[in-house]
Amino acid sequence: MGETLLCGGLVWQPGLDVESADILIRDGVIAAVGAGTDDSPDAAVIDIPGRLVLPGLVEAHCHLDKTLYGGPWVPHSAGEPLAERIANDRNRRGELGIPDVDRITALLERMVAAGTSYVRSHTDVDPEVGLRGVEAVRAAAARLDGRVTVEQVAFPQHGVLVNPGTAELLEEALKGGVETIGGIDPAGFDRDPVGQLDLIFGLAERYGAGIDIHLHDGGTLGAFEFELIIERTEAAGLGGRVAISHGYALPQIDAAPRERLIERLAAAGVSLVTGAVYDFPVPPVKKLRAAGANVACGHDGIRDLWGPFGSGDMLERAMHLAYRNTFRRDDDIELALEAATHGGARLLGLGAYGIVPGAPADLVVVQAETPAAAVVTRPVRDLVLKNGRVVARDGELVPAS
Amino acid sequence: MGETLLCGGLVWQPGLDVESADILIRDGVIAAVGAGTDDSPDAAVIDIPGRLVLPGLVEAHCHLDKTLYGGPWVPHSAGEPLAERIANDRNRRGELGIPDVDRITALLERMVAAGTSYVRSHTDVDPEVGLRGVEAVRAAAARLDGRVTVEQVAFPQHGVLVNPGTAELLEEALKGGVETIGGIDPAGFDRDPVGQLDLIFGLAERYGAGIDIHLHDGGTLGAFEFELIIERTEAAGLGGRVAISHGYALPQIDAAPRERLIERLAAAGVSLVTGAVYDFPVPPVKKLRAAGANVACGHDGIRDLWGPFGSGDMLERAMHLAYRNTFRRDDDIELALEAATHGGARLLGLGAYGIVPGAPADLVVVQAETPAAAVVTRPVRDLVLKNGRVVARDGELVPAS
Ligand SMILES: [Zn+2]
Ligand SMILES: [Zn+2]
Repeated sequence: MGETLLCGGLVWQPGLDVESADILIRDGVIAAVGAGTDDSPDAAVIDIPGRLVLPGLVEAHCHLDKTLYGGPWVPHSAGEPLAERIANDRNRRGELGIPDVDRITALLERMVAAGTSYVRSHTDVDPEVGLRGVEAVRAAAARLDGRVTVEQVAFPQHGVLVNPGTAELLEEALKGGVETIGGIDPAGFDRDPVGQLDLIFGLAERYGAGIDIHLHDGGTLGAFEFELIIERTEAAGLGGRVAISHGYALPQIDAAPRERLIERLAAAGVSLVTGAVYDFPVPPVKKLRAAGANVACGHDGIRDLWGPFGSGDMLERAMHLAYRNTFRRDDDIELALEAATHGGARLLGLGAYGIVPGAPADLVVVQAETPAAAVVTRPVRDLVLKNGRVVARDGELVPAS
Repeated sequence: MGETLLCGGLVWQPGLDVESADILIRDGVIAAVGAGTDDSPDAAVIDIPGRLVLPGLVEAHCHLDKTLYGGPWVPHSAGEPLAERIANDRNRRGELGIPDVDRITALLERMVAAGTSYVRSHTDVDPEVGLRGVEAVRAAAARLDGRVTVEQVAFPQHGVLVNPGTAELLEEALKGGVETIGGIDPAGFDRDPVGQLDLIFGLAERYGAGIDIHLHDGGTLGAFEFELIIERTEAAGLGGRVAISHGYALPQIDAAPRERLIERLAAAGVSLVTGAVYDFPVPPVKKLRAAGANVACGHDGIRDLWGPFGSGDMLERAMHLAYRNTFRRDDDIELALEAATHGGARLLGLGAYGIVPGAPADLVVVQAETPAAAVVTRPVRDLVLKNGRVVARDGELVPAS
């Protein structure tokens, strides 16, 4: 691939002032940051004077397999109760041909055009759909041909213990290379928190998988499940490989137990993943980060039978996270941007990430006066690079050449 | 101005399915909806096949005088407590040259480009700034030369009773033609709810002005102030001319007193205006509308010393309102769009409004499969008309010819 030099951009590192620096890319990897062109006379130069350079965005929680993106508008047809929404999803996905590789591809293309380099997708695995969702997401990701990295979570949307055959399929998914195992409301859904968690942690240990559990259970019940997850993470030595998605309990409980729980999350290396969706409780990002707990951010559903919202743009998602945290100051708003970048990278266990030598050249170039302004204004992505290759320009996917 | 025919659009009326209909515009007014071209052979035809047509959007609550829009990014510099944010605003507005007619003009231009036809702006009036804000907003509105209608509220940001000289200036503003008088937390801020409200209602009656009161006071205190406002509205026969902005108490109090309060708002003709900003409590739009209470919607601050967020796009604002109400169904999401259109028009007491014969031809044309989809996707405004004149096209202001 040779060398490319991004010239004259303003490089963002979380917690630091942006700095004017050239970025030298060699064979898809960042070779130097701040180096002058004189070091590499043969590099292809891309001038980005005064543009802001962010690391590739990380979509840390979505459901690619469910999406209707790029197809006709489907008015939402479910009622409010969760059970009704689950039944609606179950009944209509066949009728609408979900999972649909074309729809998933369309959404991944939009994500890439908006600067996303990495995606964690929770894919339904149950006796009805089997592993078709996993295969559909894999097929769509393959079509993207390296423009984005997709990691899947084998997700028991309809419960584990209450849905016979699911545990076996989760295991099959892990055997087949799915990187992470999911869970859902061990108490509220499966009615047996210890039972579901022991099963999931057991599978994770057996197959060397990560864990990412949907936890909507609120208040003290949800907080108890946080503790169960933390205890098992510590016992299994899985620190850094376990996440709780949503975790509505954390913002709901009283301040004193919340602070203790945040300390325990940090100590155990359990990430919190939030979408800041609708009116649901949003975690206190600043307190979590101050305590050293990791926070990542994702859309949850995008244009699917669970709801019509979501654009695939992680700067917009960071806006929602900042907004619901009532962040107004630049350094606070940057915490939401950090969740949509470095926080997601930590969640995914990416060894090399960011605008540093040795990291893959996954970069997003935008016109914004500050990183916080990028979150507030969500400007067109002037340029998106993945492994040093220009994959999007002026907000549009660059077609294969 | 002659005749214009908008041909082939899909016309939205709240609560109805969209209907394909031509719109005949004569001298800036809608002359017919559904008429064929044969009736008006001389009309200039604008083809908008399959495009969605909405009535001009209504920004029901903003603070034009405070905006830094279009200028350099100003990182937010205030701390969290309200008192600190007020002090920050007060200290820095002089340094930054606020109010600034250029900044206000830039924001109004953006609003017009995004399809806004009417704006209610709460303008600071106090002994420090005097009526300079009112004049600046008036000067900027004049520069827009009829592309948007701006109504002002004389707003005592720093209190009435606690800030000597303010009451006199509010009166001067009303004498000088400001249409509406504002208020702020009669209890929490002025420490005398009856005192502030009696003063404001007295001025409103004397000058035939409307009333729009910022009410952040929460819980039962705020609910009590709701009652005081309702009682005074009924006593003064001001139904339809009084609004409460924000009204955080309504979503905060228990369900039973909330339902009673909603009934009373509806009966008294007191509107609720919400921004659905940050993480602040959002009113239950569906319950309010079902009870017949009016709901309008606006940004509150846009890129100012109170916070950097806000775009001026009322479809985006409707998105926030729908989102925070956890609306997923098309007909629910349309309630948020209604707040950003007809609800605002009722607030402003516009006699003729909407896509009906006799109303001013204030129209927004977008590509969206349904009105709810317009809120979800916020597409580029293909065409914006104000009084029949094309004021924006493809998301950009049409320059004066
Ligand atoms: Zn999810
Ligand atoms: Zn306000």
